Amino acid sequence: MNKWPKEVTIKEVGPRDGLQNETAFIKTEDKIAWINLLSKTGLSYIEITSFVNPKWIPQLADSLEVASNIDKVPGITYAALVPNSKGLERALAANVDEVSVFISASETHNRKNINKTIKETFPVLKQVVAKAKKANKTVRGYVSAVFGCPYEGTVPIEKVLRVSESLFEMGIDELSLGDTIGVANPRQVQEVLTELFKWFPREKLAMHFHNTHGMALANVLASLEMGITTFDSSLGGLGGCPYAEGASGNLATDDLLTMLDGMGISSGVQREPLIKAAFFIQEKMGQKLNSHFLQAFNPSGSQVN
Amino acid sequence: MNKWPKEVTIKEVGPRDGLQNETAFIKTEDKIAWINLLSKTGLSYIEITSFVNPKWIPQLADSLEVASNIDKVPGITYAALVPNSKGLERALAANVDEVSVFISASETHNRKNINKTIKETFPVLKQVVAKAKKANKTVRGYVSAVFGCPYEGTVPIEKVLRVSESLFEMGIDELSLGDTIGVANPRQVQEVLTELFKWFPREKLAMHFHNTHGMALANVLASLEMGITTFDSSLGGLGGCPYAEGASGNLATDDLLTMLDGMGISSGVQREPLIKAAFFIQEKMGQKLNSHFLQAFNPSGSQVN
Repeated sequence: MNKWPKEVTIKEVGPRDGLQNETAFIKTEDKIAWINLLSKTGLSYIEITSFVNPKWIPQLADSLEVASNIDKVPGITYAALVPNSKGLERALAANVDEVSVFISASETHNRKNINKTIKETFPVLKQVVAKAKKANKTVRGYVSAVFGCPYEGTVPIEKVLRVSESLFEMGIDELSLGDTIGVANPRQVQEVLTELFKWFPREKLAMHFHNTHGMALANVLASLEMGITTFDSSLGGLGGCPYAEGASGNLATDDLLTMLDGMGISSGVQREPLIKAAFFIQEKMGQKLNSHFLQAFNPSGSQVN
Repeated sequence: MNKWPKEVTIKEVGPRDGLQNETAFIKTEDKIAWINLLSKTGLSYIEITSFVNPKWIPQLADSLEVASNIDKVPGITYAALVPNSKGLERALAANVDEVSVFISASETHNRKNINKTIKETFPVLKQVVAKAKKANKTVRGYVSAVFGCPYEGTVPIEKVLRVSESLFEMGIDELSLGDTIGVANPRQVQEVLTELFKWFPREKLAMHFHNTHGMALANVLASLEMGITTFDSSLGGLGGCPYAEGASGNLATDDLLTMLDGMGISSGVQREPLIKAAFFIQEKMGQKLNSHFLQAFNPSGSQVN
């Protein structure tokens, strides 16, 4: 039998990564109410919004208002994504606890995503990380397309190592490895982690899986077996997949919790309030979300406790 | 890094386990055409139908005609489910290569399923296995509700061992362990297998997972790590879940193949003809099937090569 960690941290990214990939605009007051529900679930980390230009992501145009008006619960880290110094200023004005920066391991994906080469992105992020640190914020780095790129296909491990190393040199506290299009498989996960462990401490690495091919939980298992203890997920699987209509997107927090609870791995997250928060955002979205839990056990799509 | 087997066998159960759980009646000629397509995929095992009373499963009322009229490809085992001696006679008349018998590890589930207690079921199966053996057929045993029962909840391992032992004593060649309602988790899989390995050879055990909670591939991975090399699956995830409307049912063959191919584990199954067979049955069903592959990459639900 395998040995798995006894405790893991779930980082809820639904209010940012989930909502930014939905076309619907959720009312500001509903976003705030949802995040407040999430704060009552035992989650210790919630990525609440993104301070990117509202032109790019109009769904999160109210980031400052959301971040400024949630009821912060002591012990929970409220994080926000920032693309540049301008975004950082707004994030600092909202007094978030942590900021996230992002870059892709794939040149084409990075350009399509932020209209810059990887090389051009580095100085922008360096400045953000330095300023955030100066403001006493912790910083998380996201690397996208670690396991495959929608434009370039396979992404060589050297490219992942290069951007990861640059981010750690800038001073990030944690690196989240993104399987942006959900193509990772358990062997690849273990191979990539084996390489990364040669350079970076495993406790500073988090996994961010998508369930496009139904392999997200298998990849979580493969990661657990390598000693990884931090996983990103989005409640209800909110967000879908921007590269394949109808496809599953982010690993769903509720499904991740089902597996962890079943395996006796503690996350501190309580099922009942989490489900309440899932029903809440599902009702606001006006459609069934695609987590296995919500697909199977909430057929009406309208139950809210 | 983990070690995984280099080769596995996929046993396609869609024409039986898939179709028996769909309400639509697929025309006999379409069933035959579909099985003939499946025979061209590299699959070495196809469970083609069930010889249960048509009153119970009208969708498979044409079992004799289907089994008698497919184009059998040498090297492929064509199997059929039989509940009793009467069913066996019809299966033998159709000259299937292998017969499958079934029983539940849960008393309530067994009664609801076949209207008999477990004790009453044993002599029925014993007779079937003996007669099948006499007719030079191999026999597969299915145990349902191994990891949980829709009526009783948790199923003690002793009950699983009891029915498994009885089936092996009758002379079955292989035992398929069914997670009928898709509640197994990787730890449970490894715990159950650890117990079963004390009594039965691992090469005679197959896993039959459902994806109700999205954990099927994680459970496959956990099984691979225990040395299991035979997995049941249903193309396109055909079949759904009889216990939860909207829920995923059988592990989808196409999704299983995605993971195995990605991991470099050989199954002998070729992707292109498999997908052709998936599109074919999806079109006949008249609706998108719920494998991740078909959900994501066949949005129209109508493409047939």
